[in-house]
Amino acid sequence: VRVRFFAVCAVLACVPPALAEEGMWLFTDFPAEQVHKAHGFRPDKAWLDRVRLGSVRLAGGCSASFVSPRGLVMTNHHCIRSCIEDLSTPKQDLLERGFLARADKDERRCPKVEANQLQEVTDVTDQVRKATAGAQGPAFAQALKAEQTRIESACAAKDPKIRCDVVTLFHGGRYHLYRYRRFQDVRLAWAPEFPMAAFGGDPDNFNFPRYGFDAAFLRVYEDDKPAATPDHLRWAKTGAKQGDLTFVSGHPGGTERVQTVEQLAFQRDVVLPYYIALLAELRGVLLEYQKGGAERFRTTRARLRSVENSLKALRGRHAYLADPDAWAAKVREDQALRTRVEADPKLAAQFGAAWPGIAQATSAHRRIFLEHRLLEAQDAFNSELFGLARSLLRAAAEREKPDRERLREYTTAQLPALEQRLFRDAPIPREVEALTLGFSLRRLREALGADHPLVQRILGKDAPEDLARRLVSRTRLGDPKIRRQLYEGGQQAVDASKDPMIVLARAVDAEARGLRRVWEDEVDAALKRNHELLNQAHVAVHGTSGYPDATFTLRLSYGQVQGWKEGDRKVPALTTFGGLFERHTGKFPFAVAPSWLKARPKLDPATPMNMASTHDIIGGNSGSPMVDRDGRVVGLVFDGNLHSLGGRYGYDPERNRAVAVHGVGILEGLRKVYGAARLADEIEAAAK
Amino acid sequence: VRVRFFAVCAVLACVPPALAEEGMWLFTDFPAEQVHKAHGFRPDKAWLDRVRLGSVRLAGGCSASFVSPRGLVMTNHHCIRSCIEDLSTPKQDLLERGFLARADKDERRCPKVEANQLQEVTDVTDQVRKATAGAQGPAFAQALKAEQTRIESACAAKDPKIRCDVVTLFHGGRYHLYRYRRFQDVRLAWAPEFPMAAFGGDPDNFNFPRYGFDAAFLRVYEDDKPAATPDHLRWAKTGAKQGDLTFVSGHPGGTERVQTVEQLAFQRDVVLPYYIALLAELRGVLLEYQKGGAERFRTTRARLRSVENSLKALRGRHAYLADPDAWAAKVREDQALRTRVEADPKLAAQFGAAWPGIAQATSAHRRIFLEHRLLEAQDAFNSELFGLARSLLRAAAEREKPDRERLREYTTAQLPALEQRLFRDAPIPREVEALTLGFSLRRLREALGADHPLVQRILGKDAPEDLARRLVSRTRLGDPKIRRQLYEGGQQAVDASKDPMIVLARAVDAEARGLRRVWEDEVDAALKRNHELLNQAHVAVHGTSGYPDATFTLRLSYGQVQGWKEGDRKVPALTTFGGLFERHTGKFPFAVAPSWLKARPKLDPATPMNMASTHDIIGGNSGSPMVDRDGRVVGLVFDGNLHSLGGRYGYDPERNRAVAVHGVGILEGLRKVYGAARLADEIEAAAK
Repeated sequence: VRVRFFAVCAVLACVPPALAEEGMWLFTDFPAEQVHKAHGFRPDKAWLDRVRLGSVRLAGGCSASFVSPRGLVMTNHHCIRSCIEDLSTPKQDLLERGFLARADKDERRCPKVEANQLQEVTDVTDQVRKATAGAQGPAFAQALKAEQTRIESACAAKDPKIRCDVVTLFHGGRYHLYRYRRFQDVRLAWAPEFPMAAFGGDPDNFNFPRYGFDAAFLRVYEDDKPAATPDHLRWAKTGAKQGDLTFVSGHPGGTERVQTVEQLAFQRDVVLPYYIALLAELRGVLLEYQKGGAERFRTTRARLRSVENSLKALRGRHAYLADPDAWAAKVREDQALRTRVEADPKLAAQFGAAWPGIAQATSAHRRIFLEHRLLEAQDAFNSELFGLARSLLRAAAEREKPDRERLREYTTAQLPALEQRLFRDAPIPREVEALTLGFSLRRLREALGADHPLVQRILGKDAPEDLARRLVSRTRLGDPKIRRQLYEGGQQAVDASKDPMIVLARAVDAEARGLRRVWEDEVDAALKRNHELLNQAHVAVHGTSGYPDATFTLRLSYGQVQGWKEGDRKVPALTTFGGLFERHTGKFPFAVAPSWLKARPKLDPATPMNMASTHDIIGGNSGSPMVDRDGRVVGLVFDGNLHSLGGRYGYDPERNRAVAVHGVGILEGLRKVYGAARLADEIEAAAK
Repeated sequence: VRVRFFAVCAVLACVPPALAEEGMWLFTDFPAEQVHKAHGFRPDKAWLDRVRLGSVRLAGGCSASFVSPRGLVMTNHHCIRSCIEDLSTPKQDLLERGFLARADKDERRCPKVEANQLQEVTDVTDQVRKATAGAQGPAFAQALKAEQTRIESACAAKDPKIRCDVVTLFHGGRYHLYRYRRFQDVRLAWAPEFPMAAFGGDPDNFNFPRYGFDAAFLRVYEDDKPAATPDHLRWAKTGAKQGDLTFVSGHPGGTERVQTVEQLAFQRDVVLPYYIALLAELRGVLLEYQKGGAERFRTTRARLRSVENSLKALRGRHAYLADPDAWAAKVREDQALRTRVEADPKLAAQFGAAWPGIAQATSAHRRIFLEHRLLEAQDAFNSELFGLARSLLRAAAEREKPDRERLREYTTAQLPALEQRLFRDAPIPREVEALTLGFSLRRLREALGADHPLVQRILGKDAPEDLARRLVSRTRLGDPKIRRQLYEGGQQAVDASKDPMIVLARAVDAEARGLRRVWEDEVDAALKRNHELLNQAHVAVHGTSGYPDATFTLRLSYGQVQGWKEGDRKVPALTTFGGLFERHTGKFPFAVAPSWLKARPKLDPATPMNMASTHDIIGGNSGSPMVDRDGRVVGLVFDGNLHSLGGRYGYDPERNRAVAVHGVGILEGLRKVYGAARLADEIEAAAK
């Protein structure tokens, strides 16, 4: 469960008052009283601050936590799979075999990972409102962007160790400035074998009971030394049991719990079917490609796993909206609020414009959706090398402009992240690049038609696969030194470049930017403007705005370790090491790794392995620590059950479950299976 | 455009009075007056009989026509692609190179093709009504099936040259007995190269302007001699031009133009997304598989083409229902009729039960949809060998029963078709079988979960791909002699068989039959019962029932040769040979075949190649003759434009277009490109 795909186009809304253990709460607005009433425990400010500072965001789309004062970070294996892949070679396949650093000096730097610790939250709503007052449409979008950029730049003050983001909550209902401590030197300390982390593979993903050992440890460094992280979390002294009250602190990626009917229909009928068909086809290609040998398997297994994960998640979301009862409930919810607003002349005058405004923005999005995805969101150019080409091209152009006029990802405050991505020294497998680029260029032709002028301009008389192969083999952007030269050479160097990938990026840039502009002005800004009204209507009618929709910002969820009933069948809360060995078939993805088979005699089969709980989480929460009343670590969230997938739109207290690796199982595995006493000792020492 | 996938589960409805050139009319109920009013030409009974008798149904799901008195049949290349594949070998690749028989004796038998000529239509509605009077639910289904079987068996009278089908029109509004002359010895006379038949490939499919030479000629034989077919169609003396009134006689496979809102939502939210995801993934697998060498390409290119065709067609249908305006119009249509009925106490008492009845049947279908598709419709067992195993298993059991108790496809009247399929002598490529069976078994595990008892029973500790490979390599059902032994050995022989594919079919048969029973009793019968009411309500309110939804029965459509406006762009009605050469890139699928490049100097570039027309057609109409006022052939339908895909649910007179190969182009190609003067002469002689 990670944030994927929707980074740009996610269209979210605010959420009604919470029911049961529903809620992805802001730390600044946690319903401690509600928890106290239900569970007799009231987290205070010190408790909340401690858990917040112990929490980590992995900028690529995951959650994590500090578990020692020497910068040790716990997260999921699947959150750093691409790092492990970057560090692997055909001869040293770390993804297959796992990795253990015997000492600090053996820890290996992940080229693309950035970790953030949230240090300060400031409400900047008034500033933003003042800057956008009275503006509509493109002017609103422009003013909003300029003000966000101004606030961020002032906050970061050109210190690359500080990251500042103005985050939008309640879709424009509120704006917060998040000030993070930024770590860009993040190293791998330990990872299990991929077959153990992903035990059960796609069939078991989003299912339960399951038996994944989806854990890994990183360490953040500063000045080539382990960073001091005194605000780490401490490990629990006793493990979590069924019925225990626990908390999950992490970064849910995106929910859309209050949407108008038009928005939901757009998701159900356009957005989700688009992604599902795209990913299903890509999955087929990768599955078959992998059969062509060990090297092909090695270079695509992680990507396939990601594709399968997204596909299953999106199908789960679609199934929720396709369910007649769930759909009817969402329609009723929207209509009830609208009816209340429209029945009251004062409310109608204040907020009534929200619905037609959102309908209009949604219809604008429908109109550009396909071309926007293909050209601006790069679905037609599924290639890391193309992504680098576009970044170089745009960085050159954008850096010539004042901050407030730049595309958001090229403002001064964002440059450290951009530079890390541009200059990383990780292998880019050419054959896979050609495969996915060819695949996506074929889709471009299919989606727009062979006669579309842009398709003709790009393909000419070429077959998509031939063009992709030629581009990938001729570009020199695989070399970080070349990228640095182009970046540092600025506009002039990039203008002069004849690199074929730069040439391709240039050929589509005008159209892509045009679509971006329409999206920003007619879709995104209009939705923000009108969701602001919708949120205010909500507060006016219901008296509270509840928690904001998830936006990959830090949230706290409370709940219990608990199974559920699947029809007549009772699904238990915990699984054990013993169950893992029972599920072993010897065949992928149900083959227990040799390390575990060897350690089996030393392992107590009753040791808890995975656990289900009622926490309201979603993609992006992967790697979140689960803590007990003392704020101590009892688990590591890595999945949800199938019912949690509908959590994008609504929380079902009966059946929606988070899934975590059990804390006891983690330490036991580290010591007895992986010989990682160094890390287990460090964690236990830090827990004292 | 062919009938695919929906053979069993198509859930259809009757259609409102026609607008413009909308309508897939029964020959027995053709609106001659309406045509006369619009075009000044009134087809009389003789005209209609002539065109009907000149029309041919290919039982596999296509249309065709007789074009000489010696049994010469014209259809699309894509309609007999699987025959050409059956006749191909690695050394003699007829699909790639095309085929031309220099004399009758060189014509080669298609192992699986059955051709039917509709000789007589009898209305048997009263008989059926009498047999089902008062029955509900399973009893209704049982009585209906028994009566249909009785009527068919009495009609066919065990003569394998007669085929009798009781067809359901208006979803139970009317029942007709169709008596066909049956031809099972069908031979290939000429076919172009696949790259010319499918020129433009998937990108151009359902697009226009296009340049496909999607034609082929077969010949039906009786007693090893060309059959006498005096009722053939005659070729036109002059070609069709823009604006000409023409007619298309063929077998549209299925429409769903009057459906209740629940039925349409079920299609949009469940049925279509299911197929689209399935086909998209299979497409990815096949695309990548094909890259593995010439033999892999040879054995899967036709299948890939089918998959891509279905995928594009289904996406087009989904897009129609996903369009807010089209959806709103469908909802209004349904609600208007319902409101009229419910507002009138007499109508309400008679027909009001239709809506809740259909809703209940649809909800039953939703409940079993996935398992029914997987287990009974064989989506979990995508393998010809499995299909043969199931047929043998079921034939043994069913033939022990009296006709009226058998599954419909095993009644006496259906045995000739079954036997042709079972005993055909065509190669079954093992590697492809293992590929698709492995793919579908993996989907079974994914869809039902690794812990499902049936999945456990089938897979045990096996990986799906391993099991598939073992089954395919060990079964002996690839040998038609073995199949004949088992078939003739009856229940005892099949019970004793340890063939692994029979064993697998046996292992799922109880579940599959159970799902079939639920589908027949709670879905199909209930829909027929209630659509009968809906149709009567329609007649009561609108005064006519119009034309029935398409059901792969013979229909006549009238219209004009005409382009359309795509946004601001005018799409012309005709394309030419010259345009074909302009579109040549040398790369698949835009590579003009060497035969055409060689013949180019002899060809007039102005020769018409393809044409668009306003006829209301749909999948199944492929291969339909297009005739002029004289009933003479002017074209050969092979496609529709993208807007025609929504024709499943409604006809858009502005933009819905059929696409045909132009008659002049066909003869010109036969003579000047393919040296097939023998056939061109035969056709022209027959036209005198």
